[in-house]
Amino acid sequence: MTASNRQYLLAQRPTGALQENDFTWTESAVPEIGPDEVLVRSIYLSLDPANRGWVNDVATYRPPVGLGEPMAGFVIGRVVASNRDGLTVGDIVEGDGGWQDYAVHGAEAELHRLPSADDLVARMSVRGVTGLTAYWGLLDIGAPKAGETVLVSAAAGAVGSIVGQIAKIKGCHVVGVAGTDEKCRWIVDELGFDGAINYKTENVLKVLRQQCPDGIDIYFDNTGGDILQAALFRMNQGGRIVCCGVVSQYDTAKPLPGPHGMPGLLVVRRLRMEGFIVMDYDDRREQADGDLAAWVADGRLKYKIDMIEGLENAPRALIGLLRGENTGKRMIRVSEET
Amino acid sequence: MTASNRQYLLAQRPTGALQENDFTWTESAVPEIGPDEVLVRSIYLSLDPANRGWVNDVATYRPPVGLGEPMAGFVIGRVVASNRDGLTVGDIVEGDGGWQDYAVHGAEAELHRLPSADDLVARMSVRGVTGLTAYWGLLDIGAPKAGETVLVSAAAGAVGSIVGQIAKIKGCHVVGVAGTDEKCRWIVDELGFDGAINYKTENVLKVLRQQCPDGIDIYFDNTGGDILQAALFRMNQGGRIVCCGVVSQYDTAKPLPGPHGMPGLLVVRRLRMEGFIVMDYDDRREQADGDLAAWVADGRLKYKIDMIEGLENAPRALIGLLRGENTGKRMIRVSEET
Repeated sequence: MTASNRQYLLAQRPTGALQENDFTWTESAVPEIGPDEVLVRSIYLSLDPANRGWVNDVATYRPPVGLGEPMAGFVIGRVVASNRDGLTVGDIVEGDGGWQDYAVHGAEAELHRLPSADDLVARMSVRGVTGLTAYWGLLDIGAPKAGETVLVSAAAGAVGSIVGQIAKIKGCHVVGVAGTDEKCRWIVDELGFDGAINYKTENVLKVLRQQCPDGIDIYFDNTGGDILQAALFRMNQGGRIVCCGVVSQYDTAKPLPGPHGMPGLLVVRRLRMEGFIVMDYDDRREQADGDLAAWVADGRLKYKIDMIEGLENAPRALIGLLRGENTGKRMIRVSEET
Repeated sequence: MTASNRQYLLAQRPTGALQENDFTWTESAVPEIGPDEVLVRSIYLSLDPANRGWVNDVATYRPPVGLGEPMAGFVIGRVVASNRDGLTVGDIVEGDGGWQDYAVHGAEAELHRLPSADDLVARMSVRGVTGLTAYWGLLDIGAPKAGETVLVSAAAGAVGSIVGQIAKIKGCHVVGVAGTDEKCRWIVDELGFDGAINYKTENVLKVLRQQCPDGIDIYFDNTGGDILQAALFRMNQGGRIVCCGVVSQYDTAKPLPGPHGMPGLLVVRRLRMEGFIVMDYDDRREQADGDLAAWVADGRLKYKIDMIEGLENAPRALIGLLRGENTGKRMIRVSEET
């Protein structure tokens, strides 16, 4: 056990692209817990594009991270001290532990206890927030029918790679947009997508006509920006745009305005654009986890982990994630599982 | 009966705001009908902001009106000659008759026969396309619950004025946005809206905070543009934006891009934005008409007609409609009912 609690605190709010010096590294004593509190040691820290939005001075679906506070982040860890009913030392829990070795959680904090035999890496990826995001966004918001065409952006990312495979399981024609030829090959050759578009080297609007000859019924949008713009013009009547994230716009001081044709195109083509947050589906997690686990078990759903070793690499790993460095789910191993 | 068929043909595609000389007035012989055709004499011609979109060289939910063809428009008229099964001389029908005294409809044309005792003016307004648009857009796409806050733009227009009253019938707090103090007084004093905002003299974003203190649950958008932008920033989590039309953007060569915060705001607030076209609900018309007629009969639903006399005034009447001249439903009396 480390003798100290290592942390990254938010030092300043980024004015444009996120920088490493927006965070400060500190080491201090492992905190003591008070009544009803629990102390959790971080094992895995999730890195997600949405983290970038949390450091702006604007509430999103959660309050902004305060200056001088530990950077927030989703963590799977082990209870090392507990004054909270229902949690004992050794339990594995998931919750907002932040960028630190040890987190104190009060009685109100949302902590979810995991079965001790769980595969923790799967639980942070394909069966965790990213898998559930893909599952609910595609199936509940997108409502795919067999034979429909599904387009997904950031398709080699943690969410997009799962979206496309679930869409294939549901009998759809699936095309992914990604930023390197290697990613494009991976989603087609390994994951079974029907097609891929490299948005950095191809004209997305043009290539969509070839890759989606029957138009797009569902666009699962992880990026916003130019790809959303191109997709909008290829949507079929009655199409659904699942608004999951806006990774093209998080890491800039000057986000683009909304796409042209909005809201007029929504009217003439009867499109639905709808945003969601995975936490809204917490009470239906069993259902999703049953499906996801079964698909993984029978080999229809594959996932890739982009494991970064060591908490000290968190800032540059998040910066890289925002630039699209990763294939699959990027996370940080903060400490060993056992 | 006029001896000739007077028509407005589309002379050229407008490059910016619509002009009277975008149309050409012609008079020609009343056409003869062939096999399976029917000849309808126009009584009332509906003017709708959506008409503006039809003269651009871009398909909307219908093909563009061709150059040299009669301007399209929704008409209630009387059958004066028929070779079509199920229609006889004297029948009252509604369909796309266009800006002319007489229209020949082929066997495939959508013509809906009305009961002979119908109030034709109501049938073109509160119980017609505009009333049905308000009804389905608010109730099916917006899905209001009692106690929710509904904002509607172009609130003194044919659709908006009905939307607000139906929302009141459903127990909502209702605020309308309109362009003159007179319109604002009308929707509050006569129609029972809870509040009104004059977007030409007030700061909509600011005033929304006072008029919608609990935020907005449903925004019924007839305008797009700045009012949509302001509404977006006041939407509550889980809110619905009903995309009905974009009157602020139809009559310009340079429509604005989509609003700022799109699609990011949709995600963080779990908003749904959805477009619709009233024709999609044709098979459920009986249900809507039953409600609308009952509400009119018991005085809970009021409507106002802005009747323009004479087909010759069609171009300037449409231009004025696009500028917001009208209160209530603007239509043209092309000929007398009897």
